Amino acid sequence: MAETKTDQRADAALYTFDRSVELFERATKVIPCGIYGHHSPAIRTPGATPYYFQRGQGSRIWDVDGNEYVDWICAYGPMLVGYNHPKVEAAAAAQREKGDCLSGPSPLMVELAERLVQMTPFADWFVFAKNGSDMTTWAVQVARAHTGRNKILMAQGAYHGKDPWCTPGHAGLVPGDREDMLSFRYNDLAGIRQLADRHRGKIAAVILTPYHFTNWQDSEMPVEAFWQGLRKLCDDEGIVLILDDVRTCFRLHMGGSGEYFGVKPDLSAYCKAIANGYALSACGGRQELKTAASKVFLTGSYWFSAVPMAAAMATLDEMEACDGIARIYELGTTLCNALTEAAASHGLQLACTGHPSMPMVKFAGDDDMYRTQVWCAEVTRRGAYVHPHHNWFVSTAHTQEDIKRTLDAAEPAFAVVKERFGS
Amino acid sequence: MAETKTDQRADAALYTFDRSVELFERATKVIPCGIYGHHSPAIRTPGATPYYFQRGQGSRIWDVDGNEYVDWICAYGPMLVGYNHPKVEAAAAAQREKGDCLSGPSPLMVELAERLVQMTPFADWFVFAKNGSDMTTWAVQVARAHTGRNKILMAQGAYHGKDPWCTPGHAGLVPGDREDMLSFRYNDLAGIRQLADRHRGKIAAVILTPYHFTNWQDSEMPVEAFWQGLRKLCDDEGIVLILDDVRTCFRLHMGGSGEYFGVKPDLSAYCKAIANGYALSACGGRQELKTAASKVFLTGSYWFSAVPMAAAMATLDEMEACDGIARIYELGTTLCNALTEAAASHGLQLACTGHPSMPMVKFAGDDDMYRTQVWCAEVTRRGAYVHPHHNWFVSTAHTQEDIKRTLDAAEPAFAVVKERFGS
Repeated sequence: MAETKTDQRADAALYTFDRSVELFERATKVIPCGIYGHHSPAIRTPGATPYYFQRGQGSRIWDVDGNEYVDWICAYGPMLVGYNHPKVEAAAAAQREKGDCLSGPSPLMVELAERLVQMTPFADWFVFAKNGSDMTTWAVQVARAHTGRNKILMAQGAYHGKDPWCTPGHAGLVPGDREDMLSFRYNDLAGIRQLADRHRGKIAAVILTPYHFTNWQDSEMPVEAFWQGLRKLCDDEGIVLILDDVRTCFRLHMGGSGEYFGVKPDLSAYCKAIANGYALSACGGRQELKTAASKVFLTGSYWFSAVPMAAAMATLDEMEACDGIARIYELGTTLCNALTEAAASHGLQLACTGHPSMPMVKFAGDDDMYRTQVWCAEVTRRGAYVHPHHNWFVSTAHTQEDIKRTLDAAEPAFAVVKERFGS
Repeated sequence: MAETKTDQRADAALYTFDRSVELFERATKVIPCGIYGHHSPAIRTPGATPYYFQRGQGSRIWDVDGNEYVDWICAYGPMLVGYNHPKVEAAAAAQREKGDCLSGPSPLMVELAERLVQMTPFADWFVFAKNGSDMTTWAVQVARAHTGRNKILMAQGAYHGKDPWCTPGHAGLVPGDREDMLSFRYNDLAGIRQLADRHRGKIAAVILTPYHFTNWQDSEMPVEAFWQGLRKLCDDEGIVLILDDVRTCFRLHMGGSGEYFGVKPDLSAYCKAIANGYALSACGGRQELKTAASKVFLTGSYWFSAVPMAAAMATLDEMEACDGIARIYELGTTLCNALTEAAASHGLQLACTGHPSMPMVKFAGDDDMYRTQVWCAEVTRRGAYVHPHHNWFVSTAHTQEDIKRTLDAAEPAFAVVKERFGS
């Protein structure tokens, strides 16, 4: 790791992204948007961020211009125990030597399902896929098959994947994609109850994330008794409660994020952190839903590949061995507190919202995001990769030294914001 | 490789699948259906096939009971140049050492898109995802965004993925999922023209596979001038022509399977063989569709992972270096001819349909599939893994020795069929 005193750097020493920009220009010729989806420069600050990376190790990433960063994005969630983690890679390599994508599953598929069932209080079974969307969409279908009802309730602004019923995009949709979708404001149990009354006997499921995280906004934790009230409402009305744990799984609780909030869903979708970056998603469910789950077709070319399942087993091992949940909670809390204090010392008010293991970090009341954008750009070019519009992620590979380095980058960045915006 | 004279074996020496059955019984407790999708025992012959595999090398796989097979299923397509191919694995390992799923794409994403554009006559751009379904569904959305129309035409019985608009399953669907779908009989250009007349100005796209392959049936090649007539019809009516090349890509033609049939689609979905088993799918398109493609949201947690892209580059290298297309065509032709002749010598008529690199193999006129099921079971327990209901796949790793071993297994299996069914 380069020992650079980022806070004392001259402007000339700040990171630049020439090679990233060059590659992006080439990309736009042969890839629509150049880079799309949640990696898209469109949701970042143009020119203030690297676009392409060449290496990851532990908590650090290196972009194509050779700049090194403490990475607080963690591949947007998948990296949980550190890039290139020796135990995860050893488990993956041992399995790869035998076989990955074969003409049928490996025994690991059974072992991983057994393990997840054993560690997940609500779940009696699991299935596996590749994308989070594979599992949220399938869960919705399972709920429909189970209840014989069509309507689905989701929170306004919630992200549940790329599929037509829920994509945040607007192009290419037809009315049929969403004619059975109803929406409510997260945390508004009374609003959900009104919908349940109005559409009694027609609602198959409510799908929602453990807490509410949307780009460009503060994250919102569930209000007191929200989950318990929702659970009761679903029980009373015969509605399937689907937890979208795709982004949150194994960062809040090893038994599923419902456990963190004291609620047991009927179905829960997992992805991202489950295999430390190896492509795997999963959905767990209660016994009552197993017949319906057996009826809804699901498949994919690489879904039974053994290496990601070996990586998942090793990732779960490592999380258990290092008490990962407590560790990233503590690291995230320390980071958020330190940043908030540093901001305050400049007369600035930083708001870290959501769970500390994946905090949304922005300036309080910064609705147009300008101050947050400028600050994140200044932090990034000083060696900590952070995002102005998306929540950050903490891993067990992060260290106090990483936090210190991030603060070293944040300090002069706060000064820039103070100077440019006054508050 | 065990040197077993499979054709001279006593019945006691035939493969058994006890450990597979044991694992499957455990699986059914924690996984709906135990094994689902295209791997499901439901589409195979119960008890007559291994369920779990522990190793793959070249053209061979080993099941959990230790039985070795010449594998004519090739992971249902992904395996193209041999399991654990040294060059593909070396490229993957070199990239893995640097990084796989990072906080942004690697330069490989640009290089792979540039290479695919360069080698694909119709395509000006590519995007990448994980499932074939990701790309067929997205292509349909792009066609709708481009045309401002809603209706989609597909062939009866065609498989385009697991998503609600096209899944072969029936549970969990709502009317909206398919209210804009219309279907025609493959090869029936007049039928397509009638639909185009009836729904003029409302049809966004026709989606279809290069030729027609459906489980349980003979594959059907396009009739003379079908593709050219369809291309003209689409041009005349402003309909987007989507090729679903998910199963066929890089087995018929390196420039996309449209080239094999002399047609240029507007969009084409790739998956399976593209990275020799590493999880990757892609969609290529014409310049005219790029704006619409930029508007339709697409993303996934692991879509920019670099290792599968490195594996894809190496797979394409290897296919070019060994003239892979010609090689698997030849191997497939030799296999099909040899099996057909061997069947004839028993007074049986085998029908190998579809492209020789992925033939559908069944007895002619065996509509109830009984003879094919018995024969495949007998072949499988003698050391060649084959499927009675799904097309087989040929790879560049297969050898004349593999064909010989398969014939050695097939011979006594034909005798069993002859004895049991008479013809």
